[in-house]
Amino acid sequence: MGTSVGLAARRAGVTVFLADRDDATARVAASLGAGLAETPRHPVDLALVAVPPAQVGPVLRDAQERRSARSYTDVAGVKGEPERDVLRLAPDPAAYVGGHPMAGRERSGPLAATADLFIGKTWVLTPSERTGAVALESATALAEICGAVPVLLDSRAHDALVALTSHVPHLMASLTAARLREGPAGTETLVGQGVRDVTRIAAGDPALWTDIVRANAPAVVAVLRDVCGDLTRLLAAVEVLAGSTPDSDSEALHTVTDLLERGAIGAVRTRPPDTGER
Amino acid sequence: MGTSVGLAARRAGVTVFLADRDDATARVAASLGAGLAETPRHPVDLALVAVPPAQVGPVLRDAQERRSARSYTDVAGVKGEPERDVLRLAPDPAAYVGGHPMAGRERSGPLAATADLFIGKTWVLTPSERTGAVALESATALAEICGAVPVLLDSRAHDALVALTSHVPHLMASLTAARLREGPAGTETLVGQGVRDVTRIAAGDPALWTDIVRANAPAVVAVLRDVCGDLTRLLAAVEVLAGSTPDSDSEALHTVTDLLERGAIGAVRTRPPDTGER
Repeated sequence: MGTSVGLAARRAGVTVFLADRDDATARVAASLGAGLAETPRHPVDLALVAVPPAQVGPVLRDAQERRSARSYTDVAGVKGEPERDVLRLAPDPAAYVGGHPMAGRERSGPLAATADLFIGKTWVLTPSERTGAVALESATALAEICGAVPVLLDSRAHDALVALTSHVPHLMASLTAARLREGPAGTETLVGQGVRDVTRIAAGDPALWTDIVRANAPAVVAVLRDVCGDLTRLLAAVEVLAGSTPDSDSEALHTVTDLLERGAIGAVRTRPPDTGER
Repeated sequence: MGTSVGLAARRAGVTVFLADRDDATARVAASLGAGLAETPRHPVDLALVAVPPAQVGPVLRDAQERRSARSYTDVAGVKGEPERDVLRLAPDPAAYVGGHPMAGRERSGPLAATADLFIGKTWVLTPSERTGAVALESATALAEICGAVPVLLDSRAHDALVALTSHVPHLMASLTAARLREGPAGTETLVGQGVRDVTRIAAGDPALWTDIVRANAPAVVAVLRDVCGDLTRLLAAVEVLAGSTPDSDSEALHTVTDLLERGAIGAVRTRPPDTGER
């Protein structure tokens, strides 16, 4: 993600300095044209911290102690935990605004980067009660430079929404794909585009996603409990159907149809606006 | 589905006659080039019955009583129920072999049809203990004429596999999409390609899918119980994480990682062979 931001910012003519825990990674990103693998001599306008949610607070504290930048943002997929950590740890919370470009991919690292990653995508910014105007303006400008659409949310609203639109869907894909892993020989033969779509995101990095689920656990639990309730009712209904004749149990059929109808409405809601996508 | 088979068979030079419960539907299919909306004067080589699983038996019985064809097949997505019904109802079960072209779409009806629908796709044939060689050869030839790859399975193995690769994934998509339906305003803004893929198939016709789930309820229950077990363990682990500090509960983290890892393996298993699909 950091390399993609570097590529997009460089394309817009912005000077970019790259640093990574692993120097080799920074050099790879530099060789791809994402910026200079050097330490700037003076504080930069904006430092973007591209690390997992639990690392944002400590890394930001260190960066602020070195006076690396006038403003700071991050790209973690969860915003409550980093915000709490920054308010607790960082010397200057006013210079930080949380950020989350909604442009994930299954692959990570510099070699998966592309300057076009953010074009037309939502880039959420989550100002805290302490965030100052300069930090918010700098992060907004970066999102726009990358071609994204900045959207302001508070961190709690962001985390509830991504639990619903990203984290729980990922877990549902994993639950589905975990069953396919155990299918008999021949399972591959009967796999079509439908199930391939349902399970595609489950190929994402398990360590990264464990950290996301951990960092957003309260919001994920709230959605997952509702899913579990729906699934329990569905399973009970299908169990009734498994033991009955074709048209014998209208209540169980109604439970199944009701879920499928609610799902069809939700599926339409997730389609991109103004397109006739099938 | 019936219209798509007609289009593919016509393109290969086969004479096709079309009939539908609703004459207008047959005429629409004929106007699209799928065949002649007429009753043939003599028995045809192969009659293809494109109706929901519960209707295959009764429709096939009627067709055989009229001596419509030398051989018969169907395209229902569940094979055990039609086979049992045919063995019970039809005058000549030896002339029937179950079929299931694995080429579903969200839309149905003649206007969604295309002659290319089956190219390179698996077309499962499920001979029963009574199926004769002529019926099997005729249905195999039809699958090949349509550009599909015929695969022989017994009906029980087919139903277990499609529960795993199609019916439960559809229900998982519906469960995910049903939550999105209830999201607050702004939910759409944070929907990305990932969740769109997970929920796409949930847009399918609820009545059709209710009938599929009903017809394959025993096999669906078996898979859904395993999913429910995984989800219950996952929810308990995320509840622990929601109440703990970042690195306090390694067992709960392990439960989450384990599911994500099993999902990642299953997701790779669903990728098409010999491609580097992301």
